[in-house]
Amino acid sequence: MDKYEDLGSTFIEAVKLDDDNNALIILDQTLLPNEKVFLKVKKIEDIWEAIHSLRVRGAPAIGITAAFGIYLCTKSSKATSFEELFKDFKKGKDFLASARPTAVNLFWALDRMESRLKFEKYKDISQIKAALKDESKKIHLEDAKVCEAIGNNTLSLLKKGWGILTHCNAGTIATARLGTALAPIYLGKAKGYDFKVFADETRPLLQGARLTAWELKEAGVDVTLICDNMASIVMKQGKIQAVLVGCDRVAANGDVANKIGTSGVAILAKYYNIPFYVCAPLSTIDLNCITGDNIEIEVRSGDEITSKWYSKPMAPKGVKTYNPCFDVTDNNIITAIITEKGIAYPPYEESLSKIFKK
Amino acid sequence: MDKYEDLGSTFIEAVKLDDDNNALIILDQTLLPNEKVFLKVKKIEDIWEAIHSLRVRGAPAIGITAAFGIYLCTKSSKATSFEELFKDFKKGKDFLASARPTAVNLFWALDRMESRLKFEKYKDISQIKAALKDESKKIHLEDAKVCEAIGNNTLSLLKKGWGILTHCNAGTIATARLGTALAPIYLGKAKGYDFKVFADETRPLLQGARLTAWELKEAGVDVTLICDNMASIVMKQGKIQAVLVGCDRVAANGDVANKIGTSGVAILAKYYNIPFYVCAPLSTIDLNCITGDNIEIEVRSGDEITSKWYSKPMAPKGVKTYNPCFDVTDNNIITAIITEKGIAYPPYEESLSKIFKK
Repeated sequence: MDKYEDLGSTFIEAVKLDDDNNALIILDQTLLPNEKVFLKVKKIEDIWEAIHSLRVRGAPAIGITAAFGIYLCTKSSKATSFEELFKDFKKGKDFLASARPTAVNLFWALDRMESRLKFEKYKDISQIKAALKDESKKIHLEDAKVCEAIGNNTLSLLKKGWGILTHCNAGTIATARLGTALAPIYLGKAKGYDFKVFADETRPLLQGARLTAWELKEAGVDVTLICDNMASIVMKQGKIQAVLVGCDRVAANGDVANKIGTSGVAILAKYYNIPFYVCAPLSTIDLNCITGDNIEIEVRSGDEITSKWYSKPMAPKGVKTYNPCFDVTDNNIITAIITEKGIAYPPYEESLSKIFKK
Repeated sequence: MDKYEDLGSTFIEAVKLDDDNNALIILDQTLLPNEKVFLKVKKIEDIWEAIHSLRVRGAPAIGITAAFGIYLCTKSSKATSFEELFKDFKKGKDFLASARPTAVNLFWALDRMESRLKFEKYKDISQIKAALKDESKKIHLEDAKVCEAIGNNTLSLLKKGWGILTHCNAGTIATARLGTALAPIYLGKAKGYDFKVFADETRPLLQGARLTAWELKEAGVDVTLICDNMASIVMKQGKIQAVLVGCDRVAANGDVANKIGTSGVAILAKYYNIPFYVCAPLSTIDLNCITGDNIEIEVRSGDEITSKWYSKPMAPKGVKTYNPCFDVTDNNIITAIITEKGIAYPPYEESLSKIFKK
């Protein structure tokens, strides 16, 4: 992997094909916020490593990386028949799929690339390779469009000069471009909305401090970093007019699973009468999941609380910990769920299923 | 300062006189939670340093240390007249008072020692020195009694087997013994209450992780450390039956200033219908302060959020931060305020002033 010059584009892009379609340009998010390094990645082993080691992260960005990755891998194949090419593709696909075993977008993107490959079966090898390039670029572009639509829909609910609180990172570096919860911030900035953003640091993995504060600051957005337990005081002081968060999964009744701490922020917003908005691509809404009670919560190692990032442990050796990654926010304290196809209001059973029929 | 052997007492004591009344035994809290070191401190310069460098912390513990410290200083005086002794006392007092310029308990304890000294003016030097020892031990004992009374009053509201959430450190190492919010935990343990305690880590200074989790674990209490933003999920999961916190200052209307994040925990408790109890020595209740709006909130350096404890900065260089130390919890979401003289319920204007008349 070679370092690649910062391209100076208006928005930081976590992943994209280079101009010659010969390599991936990946922002190495493991070095944030101390270093902004773009990697030029060609070999499938390096692409696997970039996903595995979280150099690229965020469900949409991982899917895009896998799509570009399997295209580059197939492009370099010496195959002269579809069967040979398919064999090389499958080998690369299985390898990339092993980079992060629970990342749904990874499998989804690779499956979509396989479908396109099969669809082009009777074309020339070079045409098939071109089709895969086309499909990977489509996946990238579609995500960028989803983010932009969510951003514009959300922006329609916000007013100039507002203070916005956000939690975790649902930003441009987790997606193709703009992010979900941060998309209205970027679009608003371009239109002179002059938002004052407050970013929860988001313990224990500090995505708010390391990523959200970083990407907003890079983009020239007015951002203030706070600890998670300071959300209440900034709301009380009248500094916040809306809360914007992304989500990992939305149930049919509008219950929302998102980064740990989200439900607490929603409860505070309710108490202080501040609207709480969830920015949710349709791909995260699962109508087969009846309520949030059906969403399993991943519990991770306590080391993330007691030791990670620190120069020495900050809790007594062997202390019990509880480290759930996500929590579920009750639908009745969510003001609206904002998708690329429109804004859903309570009752969500109706409004969410209507959006899917659009 | 020499290291001193762990005395193996039932409760960890942050500060006390040694058996010969010749030195202070201080738990070095700057080394927690990684090392449990007791210092034997004799010289006034070392006592000053222990307060200044936060080896001893917590308002009551600081006051007690100052009282013992000025006694030891005066005891070693070679004075043969009251005037000479008073001069030595004043010199020591002024020096100790400069250890932490904003610690009210420090000045309070030193003033009380001076009053006792003046009261004994016409006695022999040795009798005066004995009186100062007596006064310093009284200050220590009185605080221990206040903590025990608060503990017993609070325990009367709790049931066996309950899950208890606490925030920051209002424990034995901040006081003479037992603490305030943690006193019912210790007293309950002795009576077989079998509490399951959840300790918020309490960013940015991590008093919950470094101190509360440590002292509860040392005492054999069932304690689980969580990040501040996990309070909501443990409440939702039914793991918490009561919240216990200490306080820095209580206004006449029952608004409570305490460590940053306390108001958020109170709002969550209200949402989940969990009682929220504030453990407050009468010394923290300020009837001259009409409401919480009159309490000024100290704002500290953002380095505590971005860099402190970490092996490298965890936020982008130069990012704006907001780091208030305290917040104010509205009286209408506080279930009860528990003092050494009894339990106050809303409306607090009445109940608090009644307690002072007892």
